[in-house]
Amino acid sequence: LALLGTGYMGGSVALALRAAGRVQRIRGFDIAPGHAESAVARGIIDEIAASAVAAVEGADVVLVGVPVRSIAALVVEIAPALAPDGVVTDLGSTKRGVVEAADAAFSELSRFVGGHPLAGAERSGPEAADAGLFQGRICFLTPTARTKPDALARVEQMWAGLGAQVRRLDAQDHDILMGVASHLPHAVAYALAGAVAGGPGTRGLTAGGFRDTTRIASSDPVMWRDIFLENRGPVLAAIDRFSAELAGLRALVEREDGPALLAALERLRGAREWVLG
Amino acid sequence: LALLGTGYMGGSVALALRAAGRVQRIRGFDIAPGHAESAVARGIIDEIAASAVAAVEGADVVLVGVPVRSIAALVVEIAPALAPDGVVTDLGSTKRGVVEAADAAFSELSRFVGGHPLAGAERSGPEAADAGLFQGRICFLTPTARTKPDALARVEQMWAGLGAQVRRLDAQDHDILMGVASHLPHAVAYALAGAVAGGPGTRGLTAGGFRDTTRIASSDPVMWRDIFLENRGPVLAAIDRFSAELAGLRALVEREDGPALLAALERLRGAREWVLG
Repeated sequence: LALLGTGYMGGSVALALRAAGRVQRIRGFDIAPGHAESAVARGIIDEIAASAVAAVEGADVVLVGVPVRSIAALVVEIAPALAPDGVVTDLGSTKRGVVEAADAAFSELSRFVGGHPLAGAERSGPEAADAGLFQGRICFLTPTARTKPDALARVEQMWAGLGAQVRRLDAQDHDILMGVASHLPHAVAYALAGAVAGGPGTRGLTAGGFRDTTRIASSDPVMWRDIFLENRGPVLAAIDRFSAELAGLRALVEREDGPALLAALERLRGAREWVLG
Repeated sequence: LALLGTGYMGGSVALALRAAGRVQRIRGFDIAPGHAESAVARGIIDEIAASAVAAVEGADVVLVGVPVRSIAALVVEIAPALAPDGVVTDLGSTKRGVVEAADAAFSELSRFVGGHPLAGAERSGPEAADAGLFQGRICFLTPTARTKPDALARVEQMWAGLGAQVRRLDAQDHDILMGVASHLPHAVAYALAGAVAGGPGTRGLTAGGFRDTTRIASSDPVMWRDIFLENRGPVLAAIDRFSAELAGLRALVEREDGPALLAALERLRGAREWVLG
């Protein structure tokens, strides 16, 4: 395995593969100072490569765990150095732009398989890597018409071997889904943190509700700048959907419509349960 | 102690008082069918009174644990039946309206002390009552110019004895603070649950972020209808403050301003840490 980006997500996959006995040797590369060294110290990788291209030489699987806006360029850079049977997959939270650009790096069938494990990511760095992160979690794979079938099969087997539930999804459908289900909650949490901080004397006087609703506002700002920009259209649409819902609640409070407000809160409480399945 | 309303919050205070050895006998009354019986079964109360008025006879402290819009009328109802030294306190999440109406039930100095422990309340019913709920938590008390000093002292001692940190605050300041720090996160969580439920195919496909950001949307709709209406002005102002923050983020995404978006996300992540103190 070649691991490009040895941080929280990539490091967690590496540790999980080791725990499952599904990998022999892991060569890693990271541009963040100290990350690759920490990854060696934590047993995430066996050796540090001098470059991304050097890391992928002879690798069966290349796992790209870098911020979403850096994935496509990295795949283009390493594609010529891939072993003939080598496959490339990633962990990015948005897929359409990545998959289009990565597919274009292969002149025949694409050996890139877009991947996105649905696992919490408000932590960062190799120190936080967790071998159990993917057990029972959903992992989206977004093959295209150009994806080489056995590349897809190998990446599916990898995730299934880590205990994840694999779901195939069109890349654009994935991005619209995640715009609502994941990116919107992050935008809301960030904005809520700002609104409460700007309120009168709130410091130290919030309860568990604030802590939970804003937990994901502790996520990495660089990662989320990238996700919001990469998935701009679906994110804007999701924010507008949310704003309409909040405006509806606000109007019921403003006109003091108790019965309609109660009905709305009951519907919304039920909506949460429904979404959680 | 007389406990009017034997649900989650009131029941938790009763269990905490028992655990601390600060109460001898608890008489309870609840209009919800079965609640008082469950409270006896859980050891929350010793006996069930036939009415609220009957419950308070001879009680040293009357604890009102009913939805916020029912508190004032209940205090007015029981005030004539109070023992000469009896004091009344409550657990309501909004204070201005309650305190004004309750104070008016006493012709001389008021023996009502507004109280609000900052403790999670998405659960409900006596079954959920928890003796450890208040340990280390903040409890606001909102005395007025008319509050009888030794009534305040007794309620302060009660909360301090349960391990809570007591903070005195003007009732209106309390409501503005809570409008931002607590009621706003609830409104946002409810609206977010609705927006995600209305999104395409989101059922069962969210990650921990959605679960956490919307946890408090599982709160009791009747309780939150009451809070939103009772604290209408501050809640509307808080929603507007939040909407402006979210609109600012949205604008940065829309015009693809990466540097400003990164700066905003870094500021908002820091805002969360600052609020948590």
